[in-house]
Order: sequence, then structure tokens, then C-alpha cells
Amino acid sequence: MTSPEQRLTELGIQLPPLRPRAGNYLGYVRHGDLLYLSGQGADGHFGHLGADRTVEDGRRAARDCMLNLLAQTRSALGSLDHVGRIVKLLGFVACTPDFRDAPQVIDGASSLLHEVFGAERGGHARSAIGAAALPLGFSVEIEMVVAVAG
Amino acid sequence: MTSPEQRLTELGIQLPPLRPRAGNYLGYVRHGDLLYLSGQGADGHFGHLGADRTVEDGRRAARDCMLNLLAQTRSALGSLDHVGRIVKLLGFVACTPDFRDAPQVIDGASSLLHEVFGAERGGHARSAIGAAALPLGFSVEIEMVVAVAG
Amino acid sequence: MTSPEQRLTELGIQLPPLRPRAGNYLGYVRHGDLLYLSGQGADGHFGHLGADRTVEDGRRAARDCMLNLLAQTRSALGSLDHVGRIVKLLGFVACTPDFRDAPQVIDGASSLLHEVFGAERGGHARSAIGAAALPLGFSVEIEMVVAVAG
Repeated sequence: MTSPEQRLTELGIQLPPLRPRAGNYLGYVRHGDLLYLSGQGADGHFGHLGADRTVEDGRRAARDCMLNLLAQTRSALGSLDHVGRIVKLLGFVACTPDFRDAPQVIDGASSLLHEVFGAERGGHARSAIGAAALPLGFSVEIEMVVAVAG
Repeated sequence: MTSPEQRLTELGIQLPPLRPRAGNYLGYVRHGDLLYLSGQGADGHFGHLGADRTVEDGRRAARDCMLNLLAQTRSALGSLDHVGRIVKLLGFVACTPDFRDAPQVIDGASSLLHEVFGAERGGHARSAIGAAALPLGFSVEIEMVVAVAG
Repeated sequence: MTSPEQRLTELGIQLPPLRPRAGNYLGYVRHGDLLYLSGQGADGHFGHLGADRTVEDGRRAARDCMLNLLAQTRSALGSLDHVGRIVKLLGFVACTPDFRDAPQVIDGASSLLHEVFGAERGGHARSAIGAAALPLGFSVEIEMVVAVAG
């Protein structure tokens, strides 16, 4: 069995440094065996899907949001190997009223979870929602709930 | 005491088949005694409240979202009779900026929960939010957290 | 150590009466040691950030949303002194597509939590999202998860 940290190395992925918080809150709170992660955008990914951003742009943004969330997760738990499973994502896509493809956008984050944790630990519940606007003009923002390994 | 499954029968409600997922995620994840259900839209319910959909259209959409959520719940637990209580809904309504009636729309889902589970088990916390757009053009999308009976 | 209830008194804050619910749901549900609070807007705070409301207006709205949430929390637990810690906020800001400052708006709520509970109990995970519209025309709506003291 390849561990999530080994898998990251195999994929050639280096997690980014923790982004500065945009306000008066924490990057995560752990309660019992659940880790609640604050919403993360991704630097360099701005604009609205359906207007100045394509679905492929959005997928890359969602993947980068997830890298930021995984950096927070490692910071909280010391190692991604302490993740029991991914429980839930809530993903927001800044978009025009006629945009219909938020699921394909958020799949950029979901697919990375499958690559790193496999289907059993990486499979998760999810909602994908179109937002009028997101902080700093981000095109995607995702929050996550993670179960810590027992 | 009428059980939730008996109550469904009395109401003449047949739960729909599970909708295909719109992306790389699961319909639900159970962690401990909580079941986290992915956001569900409802087929045939498209458009924006305040534009091409009425509040009554929206209520029907929300009720159909809840039927999809209950179908997922039964799939997860084997029977709705294993629901301990409904904990929380997060409901999104695709709408125009001047639309003010998201609560009346989401009540279509909340009222069905009361009919099926009664006030004690069916009463729940809730937020209702206006979204710029929803996946596939859905007019309503709802996610839910359910406590499993001990 | 000053307790949260003492701190409220020192700050000269009186919590408002519970707002009437906008639909067929509860103000909160407790499950285990977690209290899930329904989304709260704030009376007198209507409109869209980026259009007819300033960031400072929004901060005041967010603070008033939090006062409503704290009133619900006291109603649920009997006293704010029974709060173990604040776990998570999900904050929505009704805004125009070009609005970028949702974090500064929701900080109006987060900062009040720090004032009342201090950094250790008041620090929380958070997401701030721009919504097309909110119930009754509210400019801000916030939901919260609170851990109850053991």
C-alpha cells in the first residue's frame, strides 16, 4: 500500500506554503476526530466561469484550491498519512447565471483526492454551487471536512 | 407510532431511483453516527427564481430534491426507519439578485421532512441561500446531514 | 478569567430577542456535543455589497447576524459560558459580481467572537462566499457550528 505522502512524491507534487488568511479566522479547527478546513481559493485563479474563464481554467483552479487545503491538512495533522478519510467538500464557482458546469470544475479537486488517497479514503460527499463572487476575485473556493485516522 | 417508511406509503410516495452523480464523488459518506449527503438537484427543475420560475415551481423543485436525498438516505441506511433525526439542510436557490423568497422555496423540502419524520425527528437546522447558478441549470440544490438512530 | 457572559456585560452588549424563523425549520439542532445553528440574517441590513451597501455596512450586518446567532446559542445552552469553542462559520454576502471583499465583511462576525470568547475559544474555521441574493433581501447571512463545553 502506497501512503498518501508517498503518492504525492510519486506524482511529483510539492504542497504550497500556507496562504495568508484573508481575515480574522483560523485555517482549520479540529473537533474530536474531524478536521474542519476553512475555504481556500488559489492564487492566480481569478474571474468568472462563463465569462472570462473556461471550464479547464476552473478545473486547474479547483486543483490548486485542493493543494492549499492539503497543505492545511498536513499542517494540522503533521502528515497526510494521518487522514482517515475525506468526508465532504463544499465547492463554490464564481460564474455567470447561465453557467451549468460547476461539477466539472470541482472535479479538479475531487480527482486530486482520488489520486492521493485512493477511492476508499479519498471518496467524499460533495456539493458544487455557483457563486455571484468570491473573496479577492477568486474563480473557485472550496472548504473540506476530513476524518482523522483512529 | 407510524414509522417513516409506513408514512411514505401512507402519503403514496415512491422514492425515485438514485440519480447518476454529476462528477467524481459519492452520494453520501457516513462518519460515526452522521450521514453527510451530497447536494441533490432534481430533474426537470431548471431555471432561475425571479426570472423564469415561480416560488411554487421552486417549492416543487425543493420537494423533489428532498425525495432524491431520501432515496440516498435509504440507500445508505437500508431504511428510512434508521434515521435518528434530520440535523441540517443547506439549500441553494438559483435566482435573480432581487429574489427574496428562498425560505419559502426550501420549505418545500423542509415540509416533506416534517410529513415523513414528524416534528421531533424531522425538525432541522437550515440555511437558504440564493446562488448565481447551479449544476446542469438546476433551480434548487440541497445538501443534508442526518443522524443515524443508535 | 472573564467568562463570555461577563465579557458581554463588559462590552455593554445585550443579545437581541430570537428572530422569528422564516420557514419550517428550527433555530438550531444539537447533536452530541455539537450545536448546528441555522443561518441568521439581521433586521435592517438589506441590499447588495458593491451596489447599495458599503463594506462598513456589511461589517455591521455581519456583527448583527452574530448577535442573533449568539442569542440562539444562549437559548440552546442556557448560557454562553457553556460554549466549549466556536468550530466553524459559513458566511454569505449578497453582492455584485465584481465584489471582492467578503472576508472583510464576515470579519464583523469573527471579530465579535474573538471579543466575547477570546482567541482560544473564539477562533474558528470559516468560509466567506458571495451570494446572488439572500432571504428577505438581507445583505449578510451566517450559519455556525459550536462545540459545547464537556
